[in-house]
Amino acid sequence: MNVHQTVQTIFEQMSGEISEVYLVACGGSLVDMYPSKYFLDSEAKKLVTGMYTANEFVHALPKRLGQNSVVIVCSHGGNTPESVAAAKSAKEKGAYTIGLTHNSEATLLNYSDYVFLYEWGEESDVKNNPMAIIMELTVELLHITEGYAHYQSFQNGLGAINGIINRAKKQVEPRASVFADKYRKEELFYILTSGASYGHAYGFAICSLMEMQWLHAASIHSGEFFHGPFEVTDKETPFILMINEGRTRALDERARTFLNQYAEKVEVIDAKELGIGTIPDEVVEFFNPVLFYSIVCVYREALANVRNHPLETRRYMGKVAY
Amino acid sequence: MNVHQTVQTIFEQMSGEISEVYLVACGGSLVDMYPSKYFLDSEAKKLVTGMYTANEFVHALPKRLGQNSVVIVCSHGGNTPESVAAAKSAKEKGAYTIGLTHNSEATLLNYSDYVFLYEWGEESDVKNNPMAIIMELTVELLHITEGYAHYQSFQNGLGAINGIINRAKKQVEPRASVFADKYRKEELFYILTSGASYGHAYGFAICSLMEMQWLHAASIHSGEFFHGPFEVTDKETPFILMINEGRTRALDERARTFLNQYAEKVEVIDAKELGIGTIPDEVVEFFNPVLFYSIVCVYREALANVRNHPLETRRYMGKVAY
Repeated sequence: MNVHQTVQTIFEQMSGEISEVYLVACGGSLVDMYPSKYFLDSEAKKLVTGMYTANEFVHALPKRLGQNSVVIVCSHGGNTPESVAAAKSAKEKGAYTIGLTHNSEATLLNYSDYVFLYEWGEESDVKNNPMAIIMELTVELLHITEGYAHYQSFQNGLGAINGIINRAKKQVEPRASVFADKYRKEELFYILTSGASYGHAYGFAICSLMEMQWLHAASIHSGEFFHGPFEVTDKETPFILMINEGRTRALDERARTFLNQYAEKVEVIDAKELGIGTIPDEVVEFFNPVLFYSIVCVYREALANVRNHPLETRRYMGKVAY
Repeated sequence: MNVHQTVQTIFEQMSGEISEVYLVACGGSLVDMYPSKYFLDSEAKKLVTGMYTANEFVHALPKRLGQNSVVIVCSHGGNTPESVAAAKSAKEKGAYTIGLTHNSEATLLNYSDYVFLYEWGEESDVKNNPMAIIMELTVELLHITEGYAHYQSFQNGLGAINGIINRAKKQVEPRASVFADKYRKEELFYILTSGASYGHAYGFAICSLMEMQWLHAASIHSGEFFHGPFEVTDKETPFILMINEGRTRALDERARTFLNQYAEKVEVIDAKELGIGTIPDEVVEFFNPVLFYSIVCVYREALANVRNHPLETRRYMGKVAY
């Protein structure tokens, strides 16, 4: 079954009574849910959404959660205890649970009414990776419950994004290599963006830099930058700015103008320059994060190579008790 | 009119049709809205909430926004262009706007259907500061639209929190002084917490440290810490951990256990130890951020003194064009 058919089946099983969609995961999997949270917050007129790190969801269950709720839980390995507990709690409240994982033996499957075993790795089409699947799920859920005016445009975007990304990855390879050489000795990076992509500024900070490179990092929303954070700007501090195409582009461009004047270590990743503009205007903003994730993977790979710090190296995760 | 009477009047003016509450501001004022966002997300069964940095709200207005929406906008000086624009956009969509400011001449007043001119400064009761006013507003809005089981307990908490804070501030003064001496040369801090207080981890990072001290900083949700960020933990990196009382305490305690084992520069601020436990169990979690804000103000004051960097010093904000 494709995502469209899956959502139709779920809708029938729930007798058409879907009032909220909860997005629950941890770390990198939670990051992949942010574009869907942004999409529903922006586009829904009735459907309610909430996004939670799994352990907070378990300890402080929203009172709204119940038999009209769909809870989407994602865990790459499928055994993250907090995420499994979240799916279990959701089921106990009568919610319909959708589990996404890369592991067909995952404990998460025991608490999932429906399961997506997703593809992963360099060779997979991004539309089969969790971020796009979750977005497609939420678009279908919105469309079936209350209608979504740009449904067809979204499908067009979904068909186009993988090709855009493959070209863009080649395009940024040389500059990622220059970036890595230039910033190999840095110990801290700020990552800025806005809109649907903000989750991936957070994700690049906490997963790619902190977890995989043991580097200090923080995400800053481009809109918030001018209300506090920009006071740290100087010629020594590195910033990575992801400029969205779409409604929030003005926020990112404003950050670029400021950084160009007061900072010297600024790396700009501009979705428009990377070719995302072929996706229809009314939905393009939702595809920025899909592009950005693939692009920053090129950057982190280059950085890991010059720093001689493999992306897989951990000192605590899965190695000590916590 | 007190907050209770105000909300009754608003409810009548809106013919009882309130379906969503938007919280919109920038920087420190946005931080003060997080506890209300957390409260409504957790406690509401029907009322919908959304929280936005003002410029994103203006550029990507939620489709749900309309004549059944209450939009709360807060700006200390009352002339923040993005916040004024947000209130204007909200009014254009027919929403009811509530403006909070410390400035009786604020432009924000032109776009506010109702105005709270709030108190500010060391001598004011925290229940008359914007964070508590916004929380009281959201509690009243929830209670009047669908009922809130712990309404009376919340009122008890509101009556008790200022006294708790005054005692706690004296209690932490000596340790804030030790903290400031010990960490005067640090260039980066991570701030951890969970639940209703997470906005104030963010706020301490972006306002108190980045804006007011030009120090690098990042907030980390205690629940997310173990899914990436904790890989930066070492004996050199300073962490400030705010431990909540209430449902998410377990998340913060887990972070403490880990940090006690693998970090050496750890400052713990424990709401329970600081006396918040006299507030009823069913609402205590919502008061943690009110306490924490006042307490971290003692810490930042001590840090500013030993670093000889006054909290008011800016190099960009209000000084250059941006």
